[in-house]
Amino acid sequence: MNVLFTFKIKDEQMEKLEADFPGIQFSFHKKIDEVSLGEYEIIATYGEDISTEVLDRATSLKWLMVASAGVEKMPLAAIAEKGIVVSNVRGIHKTPMAETALAHILSLGRALPVLAEQQKRKEWNTKVRQSELRGSTALILGPGAIGSEIGRLLQAFGVRTIGCNDSGDEAPFMDETIQFEGLVNRLPEADIVVSVLPSTAKTKGLLKESQFQAMKESALFMNFGRGDLVKETILVEALKNGEIGHAVLDVFEKEPLPAESELWSLSNVTISPHVSSHSGKYIERALEFFTENLKKWQKGDRSLTNLIDTEKGY
Amino acid sequence: MNVLFTFKIKDEQMEKLEADFPGIQFSFHKKIDEVSLGEYEIIATYGEDISTEVLDRATSLKWLMVASAGVEKMPLAAIAEKGIVVSNVRGIHKTPMAETALAHILSLGRALPVLAEQQKRKEWNTKVRQSELRGSTALILGPGAIGSEIGRLLQAFGVRTIGCNDSGDEAPFMDETIQFEGLVNRLPEADIVVSVLPSTAKTKGLLKESQFQAMKESALFMNFGRGDLVKETILVEALKNGEIGHAVLDVFEKEPLPAESELWSLSNVTISPHVSSHSGKYIERALEFFTENLKKWQKGDRSLTNLIDTEKGY
Repeated sequence: MNVLFTFKIKDEQMEKLEADFPGIQFSFHKKIDEVSLGEYEIIATYGEDISTEVLDRATSLKWLMVASAGVEKMPLAAIAEKGIVVSNVRGIHKTPMAETALAHILSLGRALPVLAEQQKRKEWNTKVRQSELRGSTALILGPGAIGSEIGRLLQAFGVRTIGCNDSGDEAPFMDETIQFEGLVNRLPEADIVVSVLPSTAKTKGLLKESQFQAMKESALFMNFGRGDLVKETILVEALKNGEIGHAVLDVFEKEPLPAESELWSLSNVTISPHVSSHSGKYIERALEFFTENLKKWQKGDRSLTNLIDTEKGY
Repeated sequence: MNVLFTFKIKDEQMEKLEADFPGIQFSFHKKIDEVSLGEYEIIATYGEDISTEVLDRATSLKWLMVASAGVEKMPLAAIAEKGIVVSNVRGIHKTPMAETALAHILSLGRALPVLAEQQKRKEWNTKVRQSELRGSTALILGPGAIGSEIGRLLQAFGVRTIGCNDSGDEAPFMDETIQFEGLVNRLPEADIVVSVLPSTAKTKGLLKESQFQAMKESALFMNFGRGDLVKETILVEALKNGEIGHAVLDVFEKEPLPAESELWSLSNVTISPHVSSHSGKYIERALEFFTENLKKWQKGDRSLTNLIDTEKGY
């Protein structure tokens, strides 16, 4: 069986694959245009190099392993027609994003930004306001793969988790799940409100003035989903009026966040430039997904993890 | 049964105690010198107001609930002689200290200090070096109540934990435990080295040049135990020579850390002023210990949590 990798991996990662799968021939570091594709049953790719022309040349191709979360730019109709299986790395962002969320929550709770400023002044001041996370309540907007991973970690810290989605269907690592509809009634309980919602017709503008007014004055609001969840003007007002305590914002209505935005300099705002999912271990994680699926494939088991429905496109 | 509280708690905490224990008479907010003590079976105190004179007046006293971790300043011999039971709140620091440790680890991993500086310059720069905690290895010096709580949380993040103590005896939430003796051989594996060791004859100066040379150049070293674990000169050299990646220091040989210390301004050092255990929830946690024990006491169960051996003094 021949496998082509069209994206770069490290030498030791190549060696590991070859050691783990002695029966498989791997070709690494190849540009898809420079390879005669007839021999490959499997192509591992970021997806961007798969065209209908490539599919026509890849006469043995049975499985496309796509090392990205989205597959919307691929020629899915042609792939479906040829009966090629597609898997992706859905969920690959959950570890770095959940670590980012906890990093911000704990850093603010333990007053690390305040301590950093004291250090610059060589100031030994123990009268710093620090709080405990244990015993608090978090409301997680979007308890999917990423939101549930945040929930899992929060529960390990002794936090009560309330998931909030459109359906109200149960979600893992949520003590309970509520619907978007009931959100405003439950916001007063939350010490932390964190969104990892995608942008859809139902999430756009979901948070309005009334939602921020319903939150605790001490609430920490975090947005790692999409910037159109809330209008920047509404957010700025809530922060300036002290309707909430602090906001951590990784996503914005307009990105990059314009220099003239008031958000940059509000003292109760932490800005990060849409990097919550970044990780030095992306390839490593992607290879974990691949290795697991490749073991199944080798045994003839076609129930791969993260299969894409090529008709539906997700 | 009568219980005297000689330290201050909030109104709602008093009400809760009275609601939870309808059969018990509580007296709150009393100075011990202004109270006739004969009626109290139980006194809840920080410990500093218990003298032999108080013990002589407290003729019904059977149990001293001490809301601090140390009891070394109390007249233990007299207490032992009268057969009075003493319990303390050992372990009360584990939650804030473990949250502090995770806050620093995650904050550095997700580059929050770098992002904070970028925000000040209104700089949208996504090329920030961020790493994942999952899959890394932590060596925990002192896997007692606090160290094990750090281990528990690290394991939830997918970190391998190696405990290190004098005996090498197993400890909770450690994938393995090693002895002080074998430390230098295992340091090369650790991405994180965190100490919560107390100051004893065996821990004083435990970390020497060779230990830092054995660590990864990328290692994060954290000290939340006692400053005499390592000489400041050794630490400064290790940090300046790049023998380790970063240090988070909450404790120092001399406290407050003198303004002339080089540690204040090294770019790979985070200084905090011995506040890792601070918490806004101290009394709340202490009352949790008390309530649990009081339930037992009421039932005649004398196997209280955190009993002090008044002969040994701990």
